[in-house]
Amino acid sequence: MKHLVVALALFAAPAVADSPCCATGDLGLVVERATGSVLLIDRSERSALARIEGLGDLSHASLTYSPDERFAYVFGRDGGLTKVDLLERLVVGRTIQAGNSIGGAISDDGELVAVSNYSPGGVKVFDAETLELVADIPAAGKTIGLADLPGRRFIWAVWDTGHAYLGDFSGEGPVITDLGHIGTNPFDAVVTDDAHTYLIGLFGEKGVTAIDLWDKEPKPVRFLKDYGKKEEDMPVYKMPHLQGWAFTEGQFVLPAVGQHELLWVDRETLEEKGRTAMHGQPVFIIAQPASPYVWVNFATPRNGVVQVVDSRTHEVVKTLEPGKAVLHMEFAPRGAEVWVSVRDDNKVLVYDTRSFEKKGEIEAQAPSGIFFTARAHQPGL
Amino acid sequence: MKHLVVALALFAAPAVADSPCCATGDLGLVVERATGSVLLIDRSERSALARIEGLGDLSHASLTYSPDERFAYVFGRDGGLTKVDLLERLVVGRTIQAGNSIGGAISDDGELVAVSNYSPGGVKVFDAETLELVADIPAAGKTIGLADLPGRRFIWAVWDTGHAYLGDFSGEGPVITDLGHIGTNPFDAVVTDDAHTYLIGLFGEKGVTAIDLWDKEPKPVRFLKDYGKKEEDMPVYKMPHLQGWAFTEGQFVLPAVGQHELLWVDRETLEEKGRTAMHGQPVFIIAQPASPYVWVNFATPRNGVVQVVDSRTHEVVKTLEPGKAVLHMEFAPRGAEVWVSVRDDNKVLVYDTRSFEKKGEIEAQAPSGIFFTARAHQPGL
Repeated sequence: MKHLVVALALFAAPAVADSPCCATGDLGLVVERATGSVLLIDRSERSALARIEGLGDLSHASLTYSPDERFAYVFGRDGGLTKVDLLERLVVGRTIQAGNSIGGAISDDGELVAVSNYSPGGVKVFDAETLELVADIPAAGKTIGLADLPGRRFIWAVWDTGHAYLGDFSGEGPVITDLGHIGTNPFDAVVTDDAHTYLIGLFGEKGVTAIDLWDKEPKPVRFLKDYGKKEEDMPVYKMPHLQGWAFTEGQFVLPAVGQHELLWVDRETLEEKGRTAMHGQPVFIIAQPASPYVWVNFATPRNGVVQVVDSRTHEVVKTLEPGKAVLHMEFAPRGAEVWVSVRDDNKVLVYDTRSFEKKGEIEAQAPSGIFFTARAHQPGL
Repeated sequence: MKHLVVALALFAAPAVADSPCCATGDLGLVVERATGSVLLIDRSERSALARIEGLGDLSHASLTYSPDERFAYVFGRDGGLTKVDLLERLVVGRTIQAGNSIGGAISDDGELVAVSNYSPGGVKVFDAETLELVADIPAAGKTIGLADLPGRRFIWAVWDTGHAYLGDFSGEGPVITDLGHIGTNPFDAVVTDDAHTYLIGLFGEKGVTAIDLWDKEPKPVRFLKDYGKKEEDMPVYKMPHLQGWAFTEGQFVLPAVGQHELLWVDRETLEEKGRTAMHGQPVFIIAQPASPYVWVNFATPRNGVVQVVDSRTHEVVKTLEPGKAVLHMEFAPRGAEVWVSVRDDNKVLVYDTRSFEKKGEIEAQAPSGIFFTARAHQPGL
């Protein structure tokens, strides 16, 4: 029987070994920015399940999920687009599709993945299953603020020319609409959670541009006309991260540029409603689900702190010191916890959002972005 | 080699057979109200995967998901609480916990499942893993409008006494707070998507009661003081389903009671903003994600129609006729499709929300409620 047992061990072992965890609803990925890897985490267990390597330069990276939550599409600074299988815990596809890239998005139906490139400038669109190139839309400069819109569409803007574009990929071939000049040197943009408005931050002049996406003919409108840099030569690292703008009931909240302040804006009138003095230059402002609060982290060198602000009073209600270099925060989808990446402590910390008690910590190598699979179900993420 | 091959076939076969589908992000369940069964569906494939039987009386039923999306907790009219495993496609737990029950909820941390009972009246709370009873909160009547709140809490009201209660289960033992008298014969209630407000419909008098849940001491406030039934003896089936109230940007929209109208209400001022004349008595009004639209179905006998209304203009933009007895609608989480249950045609139809084209249909036995796993990540669902 010995050779039979051995043969069974050879053939059967992979099948009877511990199956990879199957339900995907409470999984997540943490970008490990120094080692080109992502850490697969289980949110319910508050633990790491696996490290997946070979994702190239992730010093600036983001990712998006397929509708079934099985796959992550990771967009790396080096122009890499990597498809990761969360169940097999492997890289299952990878293409270096540009020289320098800053982000991407997946269409609402999960069929197409678009990537936003600096070099060469433009947007490339790939089949989400095979990573085959399906469209190449060159731009006269660096593309920024790429986001998905309902109906297999994408929107983006171009730093060098100040134009915004809407790409409709729902028909036979792409239909690209120029939405016009939106301002000088748009540096980032974001779509509101209801896909109503595209908000574009400007580096080259004051103000913010809004485009009403529900209009039959969307047009750029300038608001917050005083918002912006005070000096010509502001260092790039002080530019606020628009992905970090929070949308709370009735208000937007955004970082005041080059100041240690939050700016609260009425969603309907686009007028300023108030300001909050903060610990440092805000980088990410993230709304805690099912609550009136937003949580804020800060730019170096004051980046050891996180503050919590009440959107009703515009006041700071809590200041936490998670550790050295807080790069990102991600909430449990229903708001009970917040996960905080602390790069220089090589940890992700988990806090209870009501008691502020630390509930767990996970070892990670220079962690930056944290992304839970629930993002698969949110427009614009 | 023959016996070796046979042995491998015996031991290896279960492992190499088709594995149950693993990623759970695009799964869903359809309640089959006449046969005590639920149909497991794959949203991306637009197909049914399995029928799971033995869930008792589902003539009125709802369900909620565990945070990892693996389990559904089904609340049946007969007081049954059934735990269904979506990966194993089995009932893995069941208890008849009351004589008559109308719904339930899961705590934000996924630890507790609460059930709302008519007979005996009260709320029972179970361990989500084992279905062991952990708390029994009797009420002086039928409990309605049970919903989860952040921090392992639940809220509900009592038809007979008109009181609302907040139950905090985050500590050693339950702490129940009486929120006071909220109106005569509350028949249903719902929590807004940001867990800000508890809205309670009244059967015994005009008006709607709102409770601001973000207050340190939440108090009932009456609004829409003319809203309600015109005659004393209004048939029960005409009572609007508050789970069907939609929350769109800046507005609530609810069915006018006993009339063929939608009522639009300003979220901030709680004042009426407009009305829309409809095909019939609205039952469910559901906001299409990432759009300005709400979709509406109707009470018998005018229940073969679905209408789409623009929340900006308050006008009907489309009328569809899916078939006989449209009971429920559920959107793909990012809004690209709507799934419609058509009870008397024994089908679930899938429509593209932009073109209104029918994209698919799935055979189902007297389908009613449709629930996608993305609900696991939304407060109050």
